[in-house]
Order: sequence, then structure tokens, then C-alpha cells
Amino acid sequence: MLQIAVLGYGTVGSGVVEVIEKNQELIQKKAGDQVYVKHVLDLRDFPGDPIQERIVHDYDVIVKDPEIKVVVEVMGGINPAYEFVKAALEAGKSVATSNKALVAKHGAELLAVAKEKNVNFFFEASVGGGIPIIRPLNTCLTADDVDEISGILNGTTNYMLSKMTFEGLGFDSVLKDAQNKGYAESNPEADIEGHDACRKIAILTSLIMGQQVNFEEIPTEGITNITAEDIKYAQAMGRRIKLLATSKKKNGMVYARVAPFLVSADHALYGINDVFNAIFVHGNMLGDAMFYGSGAGKLPTASAVVADVIDALRRTENAPVEWKKEPLRLADVTEAKSRFFVRLKGDIAQAKAMFGDDMAKGWSVSNIIVDGECGFITNEITEKQFETITARSENIVNRIRLL
Amino acid sequence: MLQIAVLGYGTVGSGVVEVIEKNQELIQKKAGDQVYVKHVLDLRDFPGDPIQERIVHDYDVIVKDPEIKVVVEVMGGINPAYEFVKAALEAGKSVATSNKALVAKHGAELLAVAKEKNVNFFFEASVGGGIPIIRPLNTCLTADDVDEISGILNGTTNYMLSKMTFEGLGFDSVLKDAQNKGYAESNPEADIEGHDACRKIAILTSLIMGQQVNFEEIPTEGITNITAEDIKYAQAMGRRIKLLATSKKKNGMVYARVAPFLVSADHALYGINDVFNAIFVHGNMLGDAMFYGSGAGKLPTASAVVADVIDALRRTENAPVEWKKEPLRLADVTEAKSRFFVRLKGDIAQAKAMFGDDMAKGWSVSNIIVDGECGFITNEITEKQFETITARSENIVNRIRLL
Repeated sequence: MLQIAVLGYGTVGSGVVEVIEKNQELIQKKAGDQVYVKHVLDLRDFPGDPIQERIVHDYDVIVKDPEIKVVVEVMGGINPAYEFVKAALEAGKSVATSNKALVAKHGAELLAVAKEKNVNFFFEASVGGGIPIIRPLNTCLTADDVDEISGILNGTTNYMLSKMTFEGLGFDSVLKDAQNKGYAESNPEADIEGHDACRKIAILTSLIMGQQVNFEEIPTEGITNITAEDIKYAQAMGRRIKLLATSKKKNGMVYARVAPFLVSADHALYGINDVFNAIFVHGNMLGDAMFYGSGAGKLPTASAVVADVIDALRRTENAPVEWKKEPLRLADVTEAKSRFFVRLKGDIAQAKAMFGDDMAKGWSVSNIIVDGECGFITNEITEKQFETITARSENIVNRIRLL
Repeated sequence: MLQIAVLGYGTVGSGVVEVIEKNQELIQKKAGDQVYVKHVLDLRDFPGDPIQERIVHDYDVIVKDPEIKVVVEVMGGINPAYEFVKAALEAGKSVATSNKALVAKHGAELLAVAKEKNVNFFFEASVGGGIPIIRPLNTCLTADDVDEISGILNGTTNYMLSKMTFEGLGFDSVLKDAQNKGYAESNPEADIEGHDACRKIAILTSLIMGQQVNFEEIPTEGITNITAEDIKYAQAMGRRIKLLATSKKKNGMVYARVAPFLVSADHALYGINDVFNAIFVHGNMLGDAMFYGSGAGKLPTASAVVADVIDALRRTENAPVEWKKEPLRLADVTEAKSRFFVRLKGDIAQAKAMFGDDMAKGWSVSNIIVDGECGFITNEITEKQFETITARSENIVNRIRLL
């Protein structure tokens, strides 16, 4: 029997127990022996739950138990998750986690400890929930210079933007709907301000660069400024607004950002709606690829965690992952070029006066959606130029980058 | 230095050499040391090509060279690829191959030899070209009961069907175009009759079932019966015709088939056009997932092969894959239920007379596209029932299953 412990009996933790129970037979085949959850660490008790007899309140019981081969960390947050995971690895136990905050902050160090102890630190579920993306990046795209990752990495905001798109609703009403459905927390900041997506793109960028990318340095805009009118403009342009987390390599530098983007109908990410996530990847040999699926939810996330557990149980050696601790200096995104969709109070003549006739050559001007406004798409222009040009104006209603 | 050999200097073989050269530095980082192609086996010489000095004509040079750690087999065909691969594994060398025919036929045996010798037999590139799908199935979806795989697994036919859809062209003219562009062979049978897709779904089904699925037993229809009129009907129904290779589990049995299907606009496979491939997967915990990318082509395929090489070089142990040799008995697809789109010479009254009023309840009848015909969609009905009902009629113009 292969014995494991689960830290945290919340949504994902109870999902892990459920997946192992429901798919017991096939998991046994894959792992080579029966997988059994021996301990579940939680502060609470769960009277009446079949797991109750396996609940422990003291982490020492787990970390000192030589029968425990793999520790599943699904508590969330940095402390005490960090201390617990590190102690497990140091005790020679592999760890599988879904904790994006932990991985984004301490991934490099925990991978190094795992390597030293010849065990594994796996975190497939930390990005994209059930979608395989971490392991494909680490084991399938290794012959490629991955020069772009652009993902819809937050299901809550994608649900909200889809609902605004297909039902013409405003931001506040779709937020309430998402909260009612349990997709958004009562404090929705981590989702709608882009913080969740930011940590996830920091992890993915660290992996493709082989080096720590600090999430605090990734410029992050959420979707709180997106209105029903913006959506109408998008539709008039045949585009959809998506909250993207994106990293692009240019001349050896990485430009990373989280922001709403206008995605055209011929892009693979255009069709990704509702709570689904997708990660678009470009490699210099592979070309375009995309990974799509359930980016969150109890069972899809638990499915990825349990697959990590199985992989950890089958291996007797450390699977090398390059992620150096020294932080990578990200490129200055104000130097990056984008095309901007701009809504301006006034008419196109005023827009041209602002940007200059020369720059306005070849602009596409959107249908007029809101009286007294014009909506237009600029040529490629750096963020800095854009800010300089528009800084003095009080007539900019909104601006959204084009992918 | 990590030395490898490449069997076959054709499209993929030269791609492998190119990928290793172009991405040398990053491949070195991932593999832990420089990867060098020491020998290339080919019957031909390549005067003027930098590879010429490394060309060998005798396989013994490779299989007896203790410095060769990994053999790349990209010759295609069964013989002598099978003998060469087996000999390499028996000599304690890992193998990476893109050869779907070899894997479909001898995968179980070659995996067993690799396991016995504690080396690896990898074949990521044999399905979906550069798209990671084999390794995700073997290492990421291991906690799931994968109950459906439906893929667009052949880029040539997807290109042809896309061209028929977007440009209204007929079968013969898009076939000629595909041949001119080098997407289709001068003898296009393997693609257009579905044989290529059939071998690929046999491999995927073997992997999810852990047991040999003989490709000869998978009912396979190609796209040669698809006409410009069928495409017009599809468009009128808001659907697209795709050549799908599909396996579905029901009550422990597997229904596998390759055939054109009418895919609705809300399905993830609807938007996969041109030469792209995509593999849709459903797991009982994961839900829906999809993998998308370049299913063929020199560099994408070579990228997957080289990633296999790197993985093989990093491992000192066999990665277990369950694929028993005993053939799985597939379910009888004539018992499987589908909805059919039918084109019938005559009117809907005649269609109802044929199928019976009761069965015709709730039928959707398509716009009339061709004079003297009616197009309608049946209720769910087994293949056998459908055949029985329509066998006596000479008025059936075509019938296409709905996904």
C-alpha cells in the first residue's frame, strides 16, 4: 500500500480524497499499488465524515511518519504551507501542491530542496487547474525556445466577461451572478484585479526562463474598468475582451503583463468562454499550440493533484526542473509596442489632433456605439508613447490593448 | 557529451538535426550536457550536406556503439524500423520515434522490451505531431477514467475540409491543391481514406485502455464521399464536417471509429481548421480538455522527437506505461447510437415513410440545398437500425454522423 497525507480538507482536499476513492482501481494500476490517504491535516473536525478518523491536528504526525511517501498540500496561502512543504521535502517525502501563491514565491527553493533529497516537488494543479500545462512545459516542449505564453488563467473573470458578452450585462451584475454561483469569493479582488492570473503567469514564465520571475514585478490590470459599452465596441470589431496573462520574449528579454485584451476571431483564445481556461504557447520549432480545459473546480483540480501523486509514487529519482533562484530582470513593458483600442469623448478629428495625422494613418475607426464618443484602433505604439500622448487629456474614456 | 543516432534522414530526420542545432544551448541546459547527433543512418548519401560525414549505411555501427544513448527512429514503415528499434532497446539504448505504424502495431512489445532493459521507448510525435498528447495521457491524466478521446488527427484532410468549407470548392480541386502544397502525397489514400487517423486513434485508445487495440478492427471511413453540397448543408445547420477519430467508453466497452462527423459550433473541435490538429479528451474527474497545435510538419514533429530524446537522456529508469499485448475486444459499433444527417432524393414525406412517423418525431429538417432532395437529422438510432432502414433504398445520397 502506498500511503499519502493531505494537508487541508477544503474544496480541493476533499476532492483529492474523492478522486482517489472513485478511481481507486485505475489509480492502483497506474501507481503500481493501492494509494491510501492515511492522514488528513485540518484544524477542524468533520464529525460524520468518513475521513474523520484520519483527521490529525498536528503536522508532526505526518512529517515524522515514515510510511507517508507523498504529502499533498492544498491548504492555500504561504504560511504555514511553506514550512510544512519544506519540512516534508527535507524528510524525504515528495510533495504535490495546487498552491499558486506558494509556488510563485518559493518554487525555486522548494525544487532545490526536492532535488537535494532526490524526491519531487510537483505543482501541476497550481496553474490551469486540471489542464496539463506544467508537465508539458517541463517534459514536452523542452526542445523549443518558448517565446510566448498567453493564457486565460482565471475562470471567474472569463465567466464574467463571457456573460457580459453573450447577455449584454454590466460588470456589477455579472459579479453578483458569479458570487451567487460560487465562482467568485465574497471578496473578489484576487480574481477581478488580476492577482490570481499574475501569480500563475509568474510560475509559467519562471519555467520557460529557467529562473525566478517575481510576480510583484508583473504589471497587472484587472477587469474592473470593463463596461458593457466596451463589450459592445468589441463585438462591433468582431473581437472579444479576455483577461490575459502573457509573457513574450523579444531579443532575449521577457515582456510580461496581465491585462484585458481585445482578441480577434481568428485567434485560438477567442473561442474560450465561460469558466474554461486555456494556455496558448508558441515555440520557435513547434509553432502554435494550445491547452484547454477546466481551470478550476474541485474535481478537475484534484485530478491534477492526484496525477502528481501517482507520478511521484512511480519515480525513484528527482525529475529535473530548471528554476534558478536569482530573480530575472523583466523587460520594461513601457517599451513594449501594442495597438490600442481607444474610446475618446469627441470625434475622430480630435483623436487625430491628439495623436497627429501621421500616426493616425491607417487607423480603423469603430462604429459609433456611444453618443459623443469615438472609438478607434491606433497603430503599433509603445506604452510610453501612448501614455505621453494621452496623459494631458481628460477625454479618454477607456483604452484596451489588442492581442 | 550525450550522443545519439538518427535512423532516416528524410523530412523528420533532417528536422531533428535542425532542431538540435538551432536550439543547442537550451537543449544542453535541459538535457544536462550537449546533445550530439553522432550517426545518421540512411541508404542515400548527402554530398554537400554537413551531415554527410556522419552518414552511415550499416545499422550495426549504431547498435554496437556504446556511446549512443538514444536512437531516433524516423524512417517510417514497419520493416526494418521494427527490427532496428527492438535491437536498440535490447542493446540498452532508449528509442524516440515518430512512426505511428510501428507504434500501433508493436507498441506493447517494444514498451515491454524497454521496461525489461530499464530504458525508454517514447513516441510523443507519433500522434498529433508537435502536440503534447502521449505524455499528458501517460503522466497527467492518470487519475482519471478517460472515457472519450475524439481527435482531428490528420492535418491533410482537415486542410481539405476547411478549404471546401471556406472557399466552397469540391473534393477533387482541394485534393489537387493539397498535393500542390505538399500536404498530400501523390498517392493520398492513407490520409483521405482515414488510415493515418485510424493508426493514431488505435495508439491513443491502447494507452487509455492499457491494452492493445488493433487498428484493423476500427471501422474507418475517409472523406472521399464528402461533396461541396454536403458542406453547404453543414453550413446551413451551423455545423462543420470534420474527419474525427474517436473512442468512447460505455459500460466498460470501447466504441472506436474513424469517420466524417458534423460538429456543432459549441464544440471545442469546431474551430480547429486548416492543417491544425486537436485532441479532445473527457475524463470522469477532469471533464473536458483539449490539446491543439501543429499535427505534422518537419519542425513541429521534430520538436516532439527531440523532447523525447531529452527526457530519455535525463532518466536513469524506465517510465512505466501500461499497454498489455493481449488485444482488447472492441465493442460492436453497429450497436452504437448516433444521430445521422441524411440526404434523400425525394421529400420529407418520403423520409418519414422510410423511418416511420414515430421515429421522425422531433426531426430537424435542413434548408433545401439541392433540388429534388431533402436533408434531415434523425433521432438517436443505432448504426444497425439505420442500415436496416436505409438498405433497401436507392435514394440515400449521403449520410454523415453528428458528433
